[in-house]
Amino acid sequence: MIQLLTSKDSTGFDWVDLSAPTDDEIRQVAKQYKLHEASIKDCMQPDHLPKYELFDHYTFIIFRVFAPNLGDEADTIQELTNKIALFFTGDHLITVHRAEYNVINSVKTKRIDTGACDSTLHLLNALIRESILTFEQPGLKLSELLDYYEEQVFLKQPNSPILRNLYFVKRQIDVIRRLMLLSYEIVDNIDSIGQRDAYTRDLRDLYIRTQTIFDNLSENTGQLLSVYFSISSKRTNEIMRVLTIFSVFFMPLTFIVGIYGMNFRFMPELEWHYGYPAAMLLMVGISVAIYFWFKRKGWL
Amino acid sequence: MIQLLTSKDSTGFDWVDLSAPTDDEIRQVAKQYKLHEASIKDCMQPDHLPKYELFDHYTFIIFRVFAPNLGDEADTIQELTNKIALFFTGDHLITVHRAEYNVINSVKTKRIDTGACDSTLHLLNALIRESILTFEQPGLKLSELLDYYEEQVFLKQPNSPILRNLYFVKRQIDVIRRLMLLSYEIVDNIDSIGQRDAYTRDLRDLYIRTQTIFDNLSENTGQLLSVYFSISSKRTNEIMRVLTIFSVFFMPLTFIVGIYGMNFRFMPELEWHYGYPAAMLLMVGISVAIYFWFKRKGWL
Amino acid sequence: MIQLLTSKDSTGFDWVDLSAPTDDEIRQVAKQYKLHEASIKDCMQPDHLPKYELFDHYTFIIFRVFAPNLGDEADTIQELTNKIALFFTGDHLITVHRAEYNVINSVKTKRIDTGACDSTLHLLNALIRESILTFEQPGLKLSELLDYYEEQVFLKQPNSPILRNLYFVKRQIDVIRRLMLLSYEIVDNIDSIGQRDAYTRDLRDLYIRTQTIFDNLSENTGQLLSVYFSISSKRTNEIMRVLTIFSVFFMPLTFIVGIYGMNFRFMPELEWHYGYPAAMLLMVGISVAIYFWFKRKGWL
Amino acid sequence: MIQLLTSKDSTGFDWVDLSAPTDDEIRQVAKQYKLHEASIKDCMQPDHLPKYELFDHYTFIIFRVFAPNLGDEADTIQELTNKIALFFTGDHLITVHRAEYNVINSVKTKRIDTGACDSTLHLLNALIRESILTFEQPGLKLSELLDYYEEQVFLKQPNSPILRNLYFVKRQIDVIRRLMLLSYEIVDNIDSIGQRDAYTRDLRDLYIRTQTIFDNLSENTGQLLSVYFSISSKRTNEIMRVLTIFSVFFMPLTFIVGIYGMNFRFMPELEWHYGYPAAMLLMVGISVAIYFWFKRKGWL
Amino acid sequence: MIQLLTSKDSTGFDWVDLSAPTDDEIRQVAKQYKLHEASIKDCMQPDHLPKYELFDHYTFIIFRVFAPNLGDEADTIQELTNKIALFFTGDHLITVHRAEYNVINSVKTKRIDTGACDSTLHLLNALIRESILTFEQPGLKLSELLDYYEEQVFLKQPNSPILRNLYFVKRQIDVIRRLMLLSYEIVDNIDSIGQRDAYTRDLRDLYIRTQTIFDNLSENTGQLLSVYFSISSKRTNEIMRVLTIFSVFFMPLTFIVGIYGMNFRFMPELEWHYGYPAAMLLMVGISVAIYFWFKRKGWL
Ligand SMILES: [Mg+2]
Ligand SMILES: [Mg+2]
Ligand SMILES: [Mg+2]
Ligand SMILES: [Mg+2]
Ligand SMILES: [Mg+2]
Ligand SMILES: [Mg+2]
Ligand SMILES: [Mg+2]
Ligand SMILES: [Mg+2]
Ligand SMILES: [Mg+2]
Ligand SMILES: [Mg+2]
Ligand SMILES: [Mg+2]
Ligand SMILES: [Mg+2]
Ligand SMILES: [Mg+2]
Ligand SMILES: [Mg+2]
Ligand SMILES: [Mg+2]
Ligand SMILES: [Mg+2]
Ligand SMILES: [Mg+2]
Ligand SMILES: [Mg+2]
Ligand SMILES: [Mg+2]
Ligand SMILES: [Mg+2]
Ligand SMILES: [Mg+2]
Ligand SMILES: [Mg+2]
Ligand SMILES: [Mg+2]
Ligand SMILES: [Mg+2]
Ligand SMILES: [Mg+2]
Ligand SMILES: [Mg+2]
Ligand SMILES: [Mg+2]
Ligand SMILES: [Mg+2]
Ligand SMILES: [Mg+2]
Ligand SMILES: [Mg+2]
Ligand SMILES: [Mg+2]
Repeated sequence: MIQLLTSKDSTGFDWVDLSAPTDDEIRQVAKQYKLHEASIKDCMQPDHLPKYELFDHYTFIIFRVFAPNLGDEADTIQELTNKIALFFTGDHLITVHRAEYNVINSVKTKRIDTGACDSTLHLLNALIRESILTFEQPGLKLSELLDYYEEQVFLKQPNSPILRNLYFVKRQIDVIRRLMLLSYEIVDNIDSIGQRDAYTRDLRDLYIRTQTIFDNLSENTGQLLSVYFSISSKRTNEIMRVLTIFSVFFMPLTFIVGIYGMNFRFMPELEWHYGYPAAMLLMVGISVAIYFWFKRKGWL
Repeated sequence: MIQLLTSKDSTGFDWVDLSAPTDDEIRQVAKQYKLHEASIKDCMQPDHLPKYELFDHYTFIIFRVFAPNLGDEADTIQELTNKIALFFTGDHLITVHRAEYNVINSVKTKRIDTGACDSTLHLLNALIRESILTFEQPGLKLSELLDYYEEQVFLKQPNSPILRNLYFVKRQIDVIRRLMLLSYEIVDNIDSIGQRDAYTRDLRDLYIRTQTIFDNLSENTGQLLSVYFSISSKRTNEIMRVLTIFSVFFMPLTFIVGIYGMNFRFMPELEWHYGYPAAMLLMVGISVAIYFWFKRKGWL
Repeated sequence: MIQLLTSKDSTGFDWVDLSAPTDDEIRQVAKQYKLHEASIKDCMQPDHLPKYELFDHYTFIIFRVFAPNLGDEADTIQELTNKIALFFTGDHLITVHRAEYNVINSVKTKRIDTGACDSTLHLLNALIRESILTFEQPGLKLSELLDYYEEQVFLKQPNSPILRNLYFVKRQIDVIRRLMLLSYEIVDNIDSIGQRDAYTRDLRDLYIRTQTIFDNLSENTGQLLSVYFSISSKRTNEIMRVLTIFSVFFMPLTFIVGIYGMNFRFMPELEWHYGYPAAMLLMVGISVAIYFWFKRKGWL
Repeated sequence: MIQLLTSKDSTGFDWVDLSAPTDDEIRQVAKQYKLHEASIKDCMQPDHLPKYELFDHYTFIIFRVFAPNLGDEADTIQELTNKIALFFTGDHLITVHRAEYNVINSVKTKRIDTGACDSTLHLLNALIRESILTFEQPGLKLSELLDYYEEQVFLKQPNSPILRNLYFVKRQIDVIRRLMLLSYEIVDNIDSIGQRDAYTRDLRDLYIRTQTIFDNLSENTGQLLSVYFSISSKRTNEIMRVLTIFSVFFMPLTFIVGIYGMNFRFMPELEWHYGYPAAMLLMVGISVAIYFWFKRKGWL
Repeated sequence: MIQLLTSKDSTGFDWVDLSAPTDDEIRQVAKQYKLHEASIKDCMQPDHLPKYELFDHYTFIIFRVFAPNLGDEADTIQELTNKIALFFTGDHLITVHRAEYNVINSVKTKRIDTGACDSTLHLLNALIRESILTFEQPGLKLSELLDYYEEQVFLKQPNSPILRNLYFVKRQIDVIRRLMLLSYEIVDNIDSIGQRDAYTRDLRDLYIRTQTIFDNLSENTGQLLSVYFSISSKRTNEIMRVLTIFSVFFMPLTFIVGIYGMNFRFMPELEWHYGYPAAMLLMVGISVAIYFWFKRKGWL
């Protein structure tokens, strides 16, 4: 669907929006605005990574926004985010995307309808800003998830789905960090020396803030994974302690009963009337000695 | 309770303070100063994160200060800190908060009553400064706690409540670091290029200092956790040593007594008159050999 | 083969390209352009590291580009990359390389044939830019490989070829990072204070972007290796649990059967009519007690 | 003891030094120079942390210098360092300290007596510089200690006092790093934009150099602790190997002697004339097979 | 031996070189150029660390260069490097060193003999530059060693001399990093604001490049050590698996043969004609069950 969201008459520039366009619609717009074949191809590829490319008479940008309704186990850039392609000149701006996104509507309402936007650069700035803001909500959600898992790991008995869950948390954080990294070029070019103003500087600030939040989340995830494995390996300690205690108690006793199970013809103890209770007493004595040795070592 | 802490007549601007306000009081102030519905909503939400938002005719800021009387096991932003909301113009400043905070009183006494404050920007600067300073005391306390636990871990036998205690130390540090990160926008906007002066630069210095202190605490906590787990796993070594020593001593002996417990009809040793003492001597010999082998290995 | 890719007449400077040159061809060009013996030697060494060297009347640069058809187990700078040597003056530029590289053809087509290049500095800039871009594709491929191995390690049973595969991933990333590090001098000298323009600044941006991507890959590889070893050591936990459970069950039972295997003449239990079932019942009782103890500990 | 180390007549400013002052002496100076009660209180607290505070008519600074004669197990800021308090105006400088410190004498000799010092700012600069220099010597000593322990850990059998010793090394480094961090404010204010000159810039350089040296020591200590624990855990490997070898040898043998210890009435092997040597041969065969299996696995 | 490498007549300044000087030669030069006793003492101490010191009429510098013929197990600053002392004024430069170093000869040939050097500052710059370059070769050698050990650790069975070898690699890297850190002052003072030019800026670039290379080597060594220990601990896993498999197989069997080794008078199974083969069959059954349980667990 092709929509003209604003036109030269009202704001001095055109904003053409293609939402889930057919091939014919794309071809029509490409022809009208003389868009290169290469950028048309990129723009139709749903899994394209962020990109900033200069052509002779326009700039081509691909950005990705957070996909709001993703399943619990989304773990790739394609599942976690959706693509918006932008064609930008001083004269007009074309946006191409698959589904209805809030980003487009929100910029339309807040910037165009209020007449706050007076150039395509400001519109571009507003669109990228709104796109980066889509990562703020997942950042908060992931932060709360991490806090919850941290409490689980430190204070409860962590059971194994935690590792699986942390994997998906880590993937989401890594994917967004990677996207941010690849999008730096776009923000850096919008806020470049020639055209820098208060709005573009705000965009850069927002970019750095978002990046810092996700760097922080990544650091915390790494720490939590490391503590998770450490606590699980600390539990091996407890298991070894039980194994060692049982072995140390039973090995001497089993040896002694083995002695009196030998079939030598001449073993005087076997003939004693109190041989059996004496052997039992000996074993009780050994157990008590081991018990106190363990007690002193602090293993019991 | 609505209080006018200073007025245009004395300092050239109004400072309206709402302490634990009723809904009616908030509505009344909102109407008088034309505050947006959205910021009123944010301002009544006790667990709102730090925020800096520009409106047409005022700036809306949410900041959080350290809660002095928290329990021992506070571990969330909401339990550890309290919210202050600020509405700021060149003409007046409105503060909204739940309880009586030292921050407000202290700025009133030190800045307003002494006449040291000559603009709302300076008042705002002083309020944020005082708010950041509330984190200095917990920083010192956490630092001492960490030193204490470090000594425990390195020089004493760490017992398990240490992990639980370190969890709460780590949480407090992480919560304050996160708050600092989210508050950067506020400090950066107060100390922005247009309005930078010695006071706002001081605020930025204080912010960086506080952030560095908590980064350092976070680093030390991570190191201490890592050493704690390493020492606990080093103890497994000692346990394994005991298990191995017992097993290596008793396995050959138990095997030998097993041999002479076999019921073969023709076993010459069983008929020997000194078969039993000979077997016992053999076992003593084996034990002595193992003892010296261990001695040489340094395991005993 | 010596080719004159552009000449003074058309662009104001000469570009001499030597592709897989014979010794004679190199000598001939060296004589014509008065190239030093030392740089000729470096230029004929196929495994030379990146270098930037000033001579009296020219600058000598060695750069390395990613080798497209490398085998699966390439793990050195020589196997992973190919060398391009450059002799640069304001008047002419000489490129020397072994095989046909896309870098040369691509710059020829995009910059020379379109007339976009008006100085040897711009040509040099374009060549280095194109060379750095050869690392973009392997960066994406390595990133996808890491994502694949991360999923394997976290969600599947990692088997041992993963360590071998991660070694080759790590080597490729380390080699490219090392090359980037050694090439910084070249980029920094092209984008130096005297001659900085929009093109050279773009080259520096590209350099930093590539470096950041590989730093990020290196960090992720380190994390993945660490998680891989942690998960493998967590499995030891499970193995120890099984060993401990079996030992704790069987050690007391084996001791008891040992007792009634002793040959004392006076052991009343042995004469009891229900001695055998009583002993068996005792052992069942002990097993049940241990079972519930394990149950409570959560080990079963 | 109150001393006038220089006076307005000779250098244009007064330097009043209070060494281990009585309460009366402090009161007297406080009254003469109109010092605030709050700063007097701070200045008499021997364990006060570094501080930079502006008062109406003077600046109050607390700095800490390394204590030369500390015991081997000093591990707090109070044991490791001594306090110097400074009151600073353009007109006079007051120093307050407990004991005789080299810092005061050295600055007196090198700066005042040579007439090199022409303002209180330069005197202050020289005092702080001299104070930071007191940490250079312990830095070198700690560096050598770490090198010694590193050699011990890598090449010798580390025994347990190493952990205790590393704790004290780590504490000293951490305490000095923390002090440096808290002193940054002082250095940053001395070398501030208004009054920056070659001397204050040198002070900042020295501060950064000292900080970098201790950051480096801290990093090396962390690495050494980590290697120490890793080597100790690698030894568990060897212990497990011995346990496993003994168990694998003796478990089948003990089982076989158990078989022929059973009391079944009909067990043909027991009646054989060569049953006993046949069983022994079987066990030798099993041992040899296990021996070669271990040999191939590289465990022997 | 005292040599005048250049004189005022030819280059406008004197360069006096003392190679392995006797005490008398040093005294003579010290007297002629009025060198302080303190710097003479430092200059005769072969193990002095890098230093930059201002005196009234000259600057005193100690630098260290890599010692080319060091043994395999050199691991201290003294064994790995040699000292050069420099006395520097605008008028003359004095170099003092023990042995013949390439650094001196190389600068003499490349800078003095070609007339390229027109001031003592440029000569100093060239000497320090040449000194830093002595660390480039060991950097490459260490990098190749690390690559070799990395391949050993990841793809081969690492045996224990690797830890010893890595220790010496780590020591060399740490020593050079430490030297670099301590030499920063020298480079920073040569390239200081007043006298900065293209040559001094090149020196700083070289310094940073060398530092970055050794930081990178240090990071890689740390990573390799960590992987080395992880792989060695992963092997414990395999050992535990074998121990557990043997124990789980033999413990139930040994228990069963123990049962039929009991001497109860009334044990019906013992009287059965097929009691013995039945017991053996039971044990085969149990072994098969365990075998399939292990198979399903993936432990066999
Ligand atoms: Mg990551
Ligand atoms: Mg971060
Ligand atoms: Mg954090
Ligand atoms: Mg962070
Ligand atoms: Mg954290
Ligand atoms: Mg670790
Ligand atoms: Mg670890
Ligand atoms: Mg941090
Ligand atoms: Mg620290
Ligand atoms: Mg720190
Ligand atoms: Mg830090
Ligand atoms: Mg952290
Ligand atoms: Mg520390
Ligand atoms: Mg990085
Ligand atoms: Mg990163
Ligand atoms: Mg990453
Ligand atoms: Mg990164
Ligand atoms: Mg990461
Ligand atoms: Mg650190
Ligand atoms: Mg550091
Ligand atoms: Mg470092
Ligand atoms: Mg270091
Ligand atoms: Mg460092
Ligand atoms: Mg190091
Ligand atoms: Mg690196
Ligand atoms: Mg690096
Ligand atoms: Mg590095
Ligand atoms: Mg390092
Ligand atoms: Mg690296
Ligand atoms: Mg690496
Ligand atoms: Mg580690």
